[in-house]
Amino acid sequence: MSAAAGPRANFCSDNTAGASPQVLRALEAAAAAGNAMPYGNDDWTARVEKRLEEVFETDLVAFPVATGTAANVLSLSVMCPPYGVIYCHEAAHIQVDECGAPEFYTGGAKLLALPGADGKLSPETLRGAIGGAGEVHHPQPAAISLTNASEAGTVYTPGETGAIAEVARAHDLGLHLDGARFANALVGLGCTPAELTWKAGVQALSFGATKNGALAAEAVVLFDKTLAETFAYRRKRGGHLFSKMRFLSAQLEAYLADDLWLANARHANALAARLGAGLADLPGAALLHPVQANEVFARLPEALIDGLEAAGFRFYRWAEATGGAGAVVRLVTAFDSDPAAVEAFVATARRLAAQAGGAGSGARQRA
Amino acid sequence: MSAAAGPRANFCSDNTAGASPQVLRALEAAAAAGNAMPYGNDDWTARVEKRLEEVFETDLVAFPVATGTAANVLSLSVMCPPYGVIYCHEAAHIQVDECGAPEFYTGGAKLLALPGADGKLSPETLRGAIGGAGEVHHPQPAAISLTNASEAGTVYTPGETGAIAEVARAHDLGLHLDGARFANALVGLGCTPAELTWKAGVQALSFGATKNGALAAEAVVLFDKTLAETFAYRRKRGGHLFSKMRFLSAQLEAYLADDLWLANARHANALAARLGAGLADLPGAALLHPVQANEVFARLPEALIDGLEAAGFRFYRWAEATGGAGAVVRLVTAFDSDPAAVEAFVATARRLAAQAGGAGSGARQRA
Amino acid sequence: MSAAAGPRANFCSDNTAGASPQVLRALEAAAAAGNAMPYGNDDWTARVEKRLEEVFETDLVAFPVATGTAANVLSLSVMCPPYGVIYCHEAAHIQVDECGAPEFYTGGAKLLALPGADGKLSPETLRGAIGGAGEVHHPQPAAISLTNASEAGTVYTPGETGAIAEVARAHDLGLHLDGARFANALVGLGCTPAELTWKAGVQALSFGATKNGALAAEAVVLFDKTLAETFAYRRKRGGHLFSKMRFLSAQLEAYLADDLWLANARHANALAARLGAGLADLPGAALLHPVQANEVFARLPEALIDGLEAAGFRFYRWAEATGGAGAVVRLVTAFDSDPAAVEAFVATARRLAAQAGGAGSGARQRA
Amino acid sequence: MSAAAGPRANFCSDNTAGASPQVLRALEAAAAAGNAMPYGNDDWTARVEKRLEEVFETDLVAFPVATGTAANVLSLSVMCPPYGVIYCHEAAHIQVDECGAPEFYTGGAKLLALPGADGKLSPETLRGAIGGAGEVHHPQPAAISLTNASEAGTVYTPGETGAIAEVARAHDLGLHLDGARFANALVGLGCTPAELTWKAGVQALSFGATKNGALAAEAVVLFDKTLAETFAYRRKRGGHLFSKMRFLSAQLEAYLADDLWLANARHANALAARLGAGLADLPGAALLHPVQANEVFARLPEALIDGLEAAGFRFYRWAEATGGAGAVVRLVTAFDSDPAAVEAFVATARRLAAQAGGAGSGARQRA
Repeated sequence: MSAAAGPRANFCSDNTAGASPQVLRALEAAAAAGNAMPYGNDDWTARVEKRLEEVFETDLVAFPVATGTAANVLSLSVMCPPYGVIYCHEAAHIQVDECGAPEFYTGGAKLLALPGADGKLSPETLRGAIGGAGEVHHPQPAAISLTNASEAGTVYTPGETGAIAEVARAHDLGLHLDGARFANALVGLGCTPAELTWKAGVQALSFGATKNGALAAEAVVLFDKTLAETFAYRRKRGGHLFSKMRFLSAQLEAYLADDLWLANARHANALAARLGAGLADLPGAALLHPVQANEVFARLPEALIDGLEAAGFRFYRWAEATGGAGAVVRLVTAFDSDPAAVEAFVATARRLAAQAGGAGSGARQRA
Repeated sequence: MSAAAGPRANFCSDNTAGASPQVLRALEAAAAAGNAMPYGNDDWTARVEKRLEEVFETDLVAFPVATGTAANVLSLSVMCPPYGVIYCHEAAHIQVDECGAPEFYTGGAKLLALPGADGKLSPETLRGAIGGAGEVHHPQPAAISLTNASEAGTVYTPGETGAIAEVARAHDLGLHLDGARFANALVGLGCTPAELTWKAGVQALSFGATKNGALAAEAVVLFDKTLAETFAYRRKRGGHLFSKMRFLSAQLEAYLADDLWLANARHANALAARLGAGLADLPGAALLHPVQANEVFARLPEALIDGLEAAGFRFYRWAEATGGAGAVVRLVTAFDSDPAAVEAFVATARRLAAQAGGAGSGARQRA
Repeated sequence: MSAAAGPRANFCSDNTAGASPQVLRALEAAAAAGNAMPYGNDDWTARVEKRLEEVFETDLVAFPVATGTAANVLSLSVMCPPYGVIYCHEAAHIQVDECGAPEFYTGGAKLLALPGADGKLSPETLRGAIGGAGEVHHPQPAAISLTNASEAGTVYTPGETGAIAEVARAHDLGLHLDGARFANALVGLGCTPAELTWKAGVQALSFGATKNGALAAEAVVLFDKTLAETFAYRRKRGGHLFSKMRFLSAQLEAYLADDLWLANARHANALAARLGAGLADLPGAALLHPVQANEVFARLPEALIDGLEAAGFRFYRWAEATGGAGAVVRLVTAFDSDPAAVEAFVATARRLAAQAGGAGSGARQRA
Repeated sequence: MSAAAGPRANFCSDNTAGASPQVLRALEAAAAAGNAMPYGNDDWTARVEKRLEEVFETDLVAFPVATGTAANVLSLSVMCPPYGVIYCHEAAHIQVDECGAPEFYTGGAKLLALPGADGKLSPETLRGAIGGAGEVHHPQPAAISLTNASEAGTVYTPGETGAIAEVARAHDLGLHLDGARFANALVGLGCTPAELTWKAGVQALSFGATKNGALAAEAVVLFDKTLAETFAYRRKRGGHLFSKMRFLSAQLEAYLADDLWLANARHANALAARLGAGLADLPGAALLHPVQANEVFARLPEALIDGLEAAGFRFYRWAEATGGAGAVVRLVTAFDSDPAAVEAFVATARRLAAQAGGAGSGARQRA
């Protein structure tokens, strides 16, 4: 990383970030509290569930876990029998990035991966894909899993979520929401947590905190409390029941206190918006998706990408770079991303583009 | 909890303890270090593996995870096919306390639970139980799992471990060691970590830190590096690959630094020895097993147990309270147990026993 | 095999037998019937279920499968969650002889294998073993599986079955009956099929036909019809749904017609009784269990065993040959066992014993 | 079914057929042979393997099983780890018609279902889909599964198979062939069984017999003998090891004797060709795929379909009836299909088409 780019010039992922000071202080306080009963029979865990009930304005059951994959697949395991089908986007984390964890935790369910613009499923696509119910030869439709914010950095509105929930209801399917970036989705939409989840028909939410300020903490939030009946056994046999649970719950408690989670997400989203705006009108550049959370997907001229890397900025080239000149990069901002690094990134990109334009190479690249 | 017993008078388990200050400081330092690449591609994780190689004086592969159950069952999953048999003690954590996690992670292996004095398996018992190799009707012998320190608070010596390893070798079985309390076993034996593991024939170790000073951190230590080939995929699909891995590794690094792990275990063991000695010669009392680590199992008169609870001390009554007068209690000490609380416990027990003896009730209870 | 022993002198197992002529004729008739709809949507399958309802005097759901293991583990898969416990005898086929199939089909349940005299579980043993319900650390009690006739060739009476069913009810457990030799158990007891199953509390029965006259056919009989809801999907994904199902069902139909199944079992049981009686009073011989079905377990002098083998008789030496002089053999008779071969066996044994007795060796062996 | 259509006018599937007389006679002979050792330790099973070695001109290991699903998923279970990916056509039986059996037997592998014209995968599609090897987040590429004859009634040539095997080799993947209709594929190609399998790179074959003359018998043929090491245990724990194995093997022996399997397939294929030719040039009709085995997929005017059904012919309307006028039907012929019924079908179709043409409706339907 060059000195020019600075120590915070890493846009690879929001999981390269550290942790919010408030979360660390909560861990210290929890450690200093002496003995506490293990496995969730502690005060922190009880308080987190209560706080989530306030945040979501409803009764619910909450299970802290440490990873997003655990949250997702444990949620699905109580929604889907071993011979079931889970419908998801073809870019969904559960399909692409969890090394078969959903199949493992469900005992062998099938994920049916579907296409959809901007990382989102449509009710029409789902309706066309769901089938085979009651026929013994076919795996049985069991659940739909959405991701909000999506893997493309876009969001489902409450209305869009509700339209998909209607499909789920019509086919008697569960509805799971992978909310690894739920806070990032929420703050841009101007709706309440309730409106984006159970009021729209979501039954189980993987409520992410790790990417947005915690060290390693997520909560499975079950709005349909019948799903909780076997959850505890499944969490335990997955190896995800923490003995010193207070240290998971303390992270979540600090995350939810004083709306830290929302402030953190607003910070990340604002910087992503700035990156998007700064790149969108460069010659040879194009945003692949609207920037609605904390991720930017942009097609850029190869020379521009090379120049940014040479200047010390870090980010991922994205696999889906097909069908156009240049290459696609993904830029992710986090709760602790440095605004100065963002400005430096935009300024460097503009400078590089201007140099290229002067040399006429930009036009050639776009040809 | 009564004021007399004090805030640290909890001997329910070493997982009611908090965390070592050094471990917390390491988390803060890790958080303050800015961006770090995720999923173990960070400096902390690399250093932990190197440090474990120094501690164990050999090449090895280490995988940090957050729970002891995860460490155990992921280890077993690379040693045992779905149609395999794992031989373990009938009181083993993997048999009794993991809600079927070994069966889950191995894809359906069978645990053959065997008896053994003082929580330990003997080579003879194992030899008598192992069978069916090559016969298609029978699940196939695959691995032996020991626990050191055992669930009875006793330890296997290097010689005892080696004798069992010989049985394993004779039958071509893997040898796993559940070391949730490995430090507690080690410090009382006066041997090296190497002598208690790979030099004695152990191929995979669940190296515990959570109970002995960490918040939630264990390391799977693979001395047989061929076991590592598929481990990473199995950890990921179990949901146990941390994105911000530095926060697991930083705990382990601090735990291993300056021999904190050994000092913590010595503290706990010394207090357990004190509890054991203080109870052993009370009228109507008997230790069930030698006190060789940080756990005391004692049969005590019911009135004595009631009195201790009334005085504010917390501990578990143990299920195996059969075949004798009184009841069995388990007392566990931890790295942060308060010596004053231990002394108070012993003094209270002695006072209660004296009162009972004066009233003649002790004799009646023993009748 | 010596000429003296004859071609039917094989007492290794009832699965060395062929098939009843009536069953073969039924297959021919089914084949000659032209087209039939597949996967159980045929007339034979409908008739078999109806006939089983008559035999068992109750509503039921029946699923033909081809192997006893399939019948057992599919039955258990609808009674037991992945984190469940199945209580069975330590000699049960599901524990010893199915290579982990129950663990596979349940998704990782734990079999708790319990001792019991003469191959049978007692209510007391079960009561002592069942525990942990509602505690997240422990696999959850889910089902009891009995075997009737047992692996020791003994039978549970309706009363004994009912006493165990009471334990199951008290703990909210399912009750499965492995009836690979159900006919053999029934004919000796003088009770009705209903009395030995659902009237005594059995919810699911593996109704065996293969060992007693069929080529390869069993029926899973679900008296608790709620268990049938997911059964069909589980059978299909196990690979046990036959496309040309009529050929399974035709075997079962012939087996049940004209009480062929009972006649076959009576034949086998009578010959086993003859073998048992013929061996029981030989010097140095002892029956291990009462002969109540079609199996004889006898401890015999080694020289006698050698002599029988030399005479061309085939049978298995049994693993459990501990704690006494001589060795244990198992003799199994089948629906097509040759009475002459049985008489030849007994005569040969008596002759060998007489020769040994004359030489005084029998007495030495018994010392 | 109308009298006009006749008792053999069922083209729903080749599994509505009965069984070849030769196969039934072999069962009778096997039953008449007295005792035979169980679980495959019999002469029939040994002979079948030897015969398959002759047929395929190579060393191999063969495992008889009773269903095509069992053959497929047991084959895949020895090729693919629980975290693996199996690439297959989106219409493959393993993807669509086995209720998740491949996921079950592999312990949770992921099927990646790919499109392809005429039911066949292309090397290009496979190359574009295979990825993620060595990256812990992604399920790991493990195997390709082809179906020959395909679900569309088309065939892969040896050359096409070899081109896909090259892709498999380049990515170190196993290559499985679902040969439920292997005989039907073979007889039209004019190549040897060896050329269509191991010489082209196939490592494991599900060699189907059930649809082509057996009652219920398939053989898993492993050309890569290392795959056999754990197969036997997996078959047993799947409940697919027959005790009276001779009755499976006898079917296969008769099937392979005197080229019965090839004669049966030629009969079925010839009748399918006749059906295809008879429908192809009807007004408003179109074949969806070339007729290369024993299946015909045709788009027909709705009135024509209704008329055929009214005349007593039975067949399935096919789900994929999109993007055109009329509807799609599937017609399958079998080894025992009646040529007269085929002629009657064609004649009826032509008569109905002529009537419709006279009324001018055919033209309107095509509009």
